[in-house]
Amino acid sequence: MPSTSDTRRFTLTLSAPDRVGIVAAVSAFIAEHHGWIIEATHHADELEKRFYMRHEIATDSLPISLEGFRERFARIGREFSMDWKVTDHSKKKRVVILVSKLEHCLYDLLARWKAGELDIEIPCVISNHETWRSFVEWHGIPFHYVPVTPETKAQAYDEVQRLYEDARADTMVLARYMQVLSPKLCAAYPGQIINIHHSFLPSFVGAKPYHQAYARGVKLTGATCHYVTEDLDEGPIIEQDVIRVRHSDRPDDLVRLGRDIEKAVLARGLRYHLEDRVLIHGNKTIVLR
Amino acid sequence: MPSTSDTRRFTLTLSAPDRVGIVAAVSAFIAEHHGWIIEATHHADELEKRFYMRHEIATDSLPISLEGFRERFARIGREFSMDWKVTDHSKKKRVVILVSKLEHCLYDLLARWKAGELDIEIPCVISNHETWRSFVEWHGIPFHYVPVTPETKAQAYDEVQRLYEDARADTMVLARYMQVLSPKLCAAYPGQIINIHHSFLPSFVGAKPYHQAYARGVKLTGATCHYVTEDLDEGPIIEQDVIRVRHSDRPDDLVRLGRDIEKAVLARGLRYHLEDRVLIHGNKTIVLR
Amino acid sequence: MPSTSDTRRFTLTLSAPDRVGIVAAVSAFIAEHHGWIIEATHHADELEKRFYMRHEIATDSLPISLEGFRERFARIGREFSMDWKVTDHSKKKRVVILVSKLEHCLYDLLARWKAGELDIEIPCVISNHETWRSFVEWHGIPFHYVPVTPETKAQAYDEVQRLYEDARADTMVLARYMQVLSPKLCAAYPGQIINIHHSFLPSFVGAKPYHQAYARGVKLTGATCHYVTEDLDEGPIIEQDVIRVRHSDRPDDLVRLGRDIEKAVLARGLRYHLEDRVLIHGNKTIVLR
Amino acid sequence: MPSTSDTRRFTLTLSAPDRVGIVAAVSAFIAEHHGWIIEATHHADELEKRFYMRHEIATDSLPISLEGFRERFARIGREFSMDWKVTDHSKKKRVVILVSKLEHCLYDLLARWKAGELDIEIPCVISNHETWRSFVEWHGIPFHYVPVTPETKAQAYDEVQRLYEDARADTMVLARYMQVLSPKLCAAYPGQIINIHHSFLPSFVGAKPYHQAYARGVKLTGATCHYVTEDLDEGPIIEQDVIRVRHSDRPDDLVRLGRDIEKAVLARGLRYHLEDRVLIHGNKTIVLR
Repeated sequence: MPSTSDTRRFTLTLSAPDRVGIVAAVSAFIAEHHGWIIEATHHADELEKRFYMRHEIATDSLPISLEGFRERFARIGREFSMDWKVTDHSKKKRVVILVSKLEHCLYDLLARWKAGELDIEIPCVISNHETWRSFVEWHGIPFHYVPVTPETKAQAYDEVQRLYEDARADTMVLARYMQVLSPKLCAAYPGQIINIHHSFLPSFVGAKPYHQAYARGVKLTGATCHYVTEDLDEGPIIEQDVIRVRHSDRPDDLVRLGRDIEKAVLARGLRYHLEDRVLIHGNKTIVLR
Repeated sequence: MPSTSDTRRFTLTLSAPDRVGIVAAVSAFIAEHHGWIIEATHHADELEKRFYMRHEIATDSLPISLEGFRERFARIGREFSMDWKVTDHSKKKRVVILVSKLEHCLYDLLARWKAGELDIEIPCVISNHETWRSFVEWHGIPFHYVPVTPETKAQAYDEVQRLYEDARADTMVLARYMQVLSPKLCAAYPGQIINIHHSFLPSFVGAKPYHQAYARGVKLTGATCHYVTEDLDEGPIIEQDVIRVRHSDRPDDLVRLGRDIEKAVLARGLRYHLEDRVLIHGNKTIVLR
Repeated sequence: MPSTSDTRRFTLTLSAPDRVGIVAAVSAFIAEHHGWIIEATHHADELEKRFYMRHEIATDSLPISLEGFRERFARIGREFSMDWKVTDHSKKKRVVILVSKLEHCLYDLLARWKAGELDIEIPCVISNHETWRSFVEWHGIPFHYVPVTPETKAQAYDEVQRLYEDARADTMVLARYMQVLSPKLCAAYPGQIINIHHSFLPSFVGAKPYHQAYARGVKLTGATCHYVTEDLDEGPIIEQDVIRVRHSDRPDDLVRLGRDIEKAVLARGLRYHLEDRVLIHGNKTIVLR
Repeated sequence: MPSTSDTRRFTLTLSAPDRVGIVAAVSAFIAEHHGWIIEATHHADELEKRFYMRHEIATDSLPISLEGFRERFARIGREFSMDWKVTDHSKKKRVVILVSKLEHCLYDLLARWKAGELDIEIPCVISNHETWRSFVEWHGIPFHYVPVTPETKAQAYDEVQRLYEDARADTMVLARYMQVLSPKLCAAYPGQIINIHHSFLPSFVGAKPYHQAYARGVKLTGATCHYVTEDLDEGPIIEQDVIRVRHSDRPDDLVRLGRDIEKAVLARGLRYHLEDRVLIHGNKTIVLR
C-alpha cells in the first residue's frame, strides 16, 4: 500500500470525445493491473462534448514498466479516440530557463529548485546578457550567453534551439526574457514554451503593460502565465493572478508590486505544467488539480 | 447525450478504506447501466488511507430509478465497506433558516434563492424575534416566532425541532442566529446544521470575535462556515475566508466588513453542502469540487 | 472632545497644483477655528504635480456653520487655485437607483441601506421593467416604471432626468441597468452616475463580458465600478476586484460567480463616493482612504 | 520642485495625545522652513484618543540639516507631549539577517536587496548552521556561524548581540530562524527585531503550526510578521496574509504553500518597518501607508 508523497508514480493524462464508458474502461485497465490510484481528476466539457482525465498511479503496485503500460493501453486509446500520454513521475523534467537582465523570476525559480520544491533538472540557463552568469554558475548550472541583435536574430534563435536540443530538454521557461522568439522556434515546441506576461491578459498586451495600467487607472495589476504561440501574448493561459495597487503607486511601484505576482504566477503555472496537469484544447487550458 | 447544466442527475458520494479497484468497480457499475458521468471527483487521503469519491450521473441515461440504483449498488457498497449515499439532484433540498435580529445573511440567502442560484425549498424561517416577519412573508415563506429565554430554552428548542420535523427539512442554517442550540438538538441532526461564525476559526472562538480581533490588532478578519456539533465553534469546517482590515477600522468597522465575508462564506459553504460535495471525516471535511 | 463614529462632521476635499504651504494653510485655518480633525488623507501626485487632500472635521468643535466655513475658506481656495468642496456629513446623500431585471445588486444595496450601512436617502428606484416594484415598495421606496424602446429612448431618458431632478438627488446608481444612457444624460451629471460593469476593465468591454471571458479562457473574472461618461465603459474607475474561476465553470457559472464580485465592488465604490473620498482627475480617480 | 521617487527626504513620525492644533503646528513648522511634503499620513485613534502622523519631506527644499530639524522641532514635540522621530531617508538602514537551515526567506530577501527593492545595508548574516555560507558570501555579505545548543544558549546570544552591535545595525530579521531568542536579547532591542511566524496568529502559536492547521482542517493557512517581544508569538503584528489550501494538501503541502506567503508577508512587513511606517502602541501597530 503506497503511503507517502514520495511514492514513484505514473501519470496518465488523456482527452477524448465524451461518451459512456471512458472512465470504466480506464479504471478497469488500471484495476486489472492492480494499479493503485493516488489521484484522479476528471473534467467533462459539456459545451465542447469533450472529456479530460488525469490519473496518478503508484508504480510499485504495477507489474508492468512504462513501456508495457504504453503498449497495453494503446488499444483503449484507439477505441475511444483519445489523445493520451503516460509519463514516469520519477523521470525529472528538463527545463531550460531563458533570462535577460531582470532577475527576480530567475532567483525565484532557482530558490524553488534548490529547496526541492521544483523537482527538475536545469541543464542550462540561456541569456542575451552576461549579467547573471556567476549567480547561475554558483548553483552549478551551465550558463550560455546568446546575444540577440536585430541583425543576428535568426542565428541567435537557431543557437537557442541547438542548445535546447543538446540539453534534451522538454520545457523552456521565459523568465522575463525580453525578446520575442522567432515564429520558427515557437512552432517547433508547441506546449513546451512557458512565458510570464506582466499583465492580466487580455488587458494590456504588448510592451510596458505597467505603464498602460497606470495610464488607465486600474485598481489591480496582474500577471499571466501562458504557453507561447506565434501570436504574441495570445497563447493558452495556464494561470493568472492580481495584486491591489493604489493611486499613490507610480509606474515604478507597479513594476515592483508586479514582480511578486509574476513570480507567484510563473511558479504555479510551471508547477502545473511539470506535473502534467495542463491539457491544451484550442486556445484554452484545462488544469486538472 | 446530456448537454446542459439543467440535466437531471443523480449524485453518488462515498468514502471507504482505500484499496485497489474501488474506482473500477464503481465506474464499471455506472457504465454497465449506461450512466453518463457529468462530473467525477476523487480524493485519496494518503495519511488516513481513506478514499473519497463523488459522481454526478445524468439520470436520463440510466434505465433505473433512484431506488433501483440503491438496490443494485448496495452490493458494491458492502464489498468495499463504503459509507455511501445517492441522491436525486432534482429533488430540492428543504432548508430551514434560523435568524435573530441581524439580517444580512437572511437577505443574502433569500436574494440567492430568488435569483434561482440556491435551488432549494425554504419551508419556513424561524426566529427568536419578530423583526423580519413581514420581509420573510413578502417572499411567500412562513415565519415562526420562537422566543428563547433562559427559563424556556428547553421548550423553545423542542419547538424548533418540531417545526423542523414538520417541515420535513434536511438542512438547518443558522444565519447569524445568536443563540446556542441545545446539545439535544445538535445531536439529533449531525451534518445537517450549518453555522456561520464571525471569525477565522480557531482564532477568536466564542462571543464578540470582532472585538477580540480588534484587541489583538490582526490585519485580516475572517468568517468560518461549519457544521454544528455539541462543542461550540469546534465542528467540522466547510469553508473560510478573510478580508483585510486597517488600523483605522474600529470594532464596528470590523463588524461591517465582516458582514460581507460572512455572507460570502455562508453562501459558498451552504452551496457545497446542498450539492452533496461535503464529506465529513472525524472533525474535518472533504469538499469534492 | 469628539469621541464616536457618530460625531457630526464636515468633509473638506480639495485638489490643487502642488506647492509648499498648502497643508499648513489648511491646517492653520482649521486650528484657528478650533476644528478637531477626525481623519486626514493626502496624496501628492509627483508625476502630475498635483496635490489632493481630504479632511473630516468634527462640527461640534467648530463655532461656524457650513456656510460660514465656505465663506471663510474661499480665500485659501483662491490663493492656492484649489478645486475644493466642503459638505456636511450629516446631510444624507440622495441616491436614485436604476435597475432592469437582474436584481442582485438591488437586493444588496437595499440590504445595506436597511442595515444602516449605507446612510443615504433613496428617493426612488427607476426601472424599465415592472419586475421589482413590490419588493422596492415593501421597503417603503417609490418605484417608477420608465420603459425604454428604441423609438422612445430620448423621451425615456428625459423622464429619468425629470425624476432625478424632482428627487433632488445627487447620485445615480446603475445597478445592472441594462440600457446605455443617452449622451445628454451622461453629460448632465458628471461624477454623479455610477455604473457596475461585469468585467475587469479594460478587458472585455461591451456586451456579454462573461462569455468573452469564457472564450478567452481567463482564470479570474472581475467587476469594475466606474463613473459613467459618454464613452461606454471608459469612465474613471473607482473600484475593481476579481474572483477565481475554473475550467469547469461554464459561462452561466461565470455569471453566477460574477454576481458576488459585482455586488461587492459596487458597494465599495458607492461607499467611497458617498463619503466624498473619490476625486476625479482626467480619466482616473484618487480614492482618499 | 522635487520630482522623482529618488528625491532625498526626511521622514518625520510622531504620536501624541489627540488635541486641536497638532497638524497645524507641524505643518506650519514645515511650511516655515519651506519643506515640500511628499507624503503625509494621519491616524486619529478615537477610542484611545491618540493621534499618529508621518510625513515625508523633500530635503533639498529644506535649508536645515537633520540635526537642525531635530533641534528646532523639539519645542513642538514637548508642547504636544509627542513621541517623535525624524530620520534621513538617504541613510540606509542596517539589517542583520538570522537564518537556520530553511532558506526561502533568505533567498527572497537577498533577491529583493539585489534588485534594489530593499534599499538597505546587510552588514552580515548570522546562522546556527553553516549551510548557507557560500550563498551569502557570493552576495558579498559576511557570514557568521554561531551554533546554539541548550548548554551554550546564553553565550550564543551574547555573541549574536555582539555581532549586531559591531555591525551598528538597527534591525534584526529572523528569516525562519528556528531558535527562540533569549529574553535578554528581546528586551535589548524593542521594535527592532522582526520575526515571520508561519501561521495566521493568534491561531496556531508555537511549534509545527502547519501540522496544527492540518489537524484542525482549516481552509486557509497564513503567516504573520511581528515584532519580537519576550512573549513568544505575542508581539505586535505588522502584517499578515493567508493562502487557500485544499483537503488534498498534506502537512508538507501546507509547508510548501506556506513558504510563499511567509516570503510575501515578511517582505511587506519589513518594507513598512524600513520606511518608518510602523508605529507601535501597546501590543498593536499602526502602519501609516
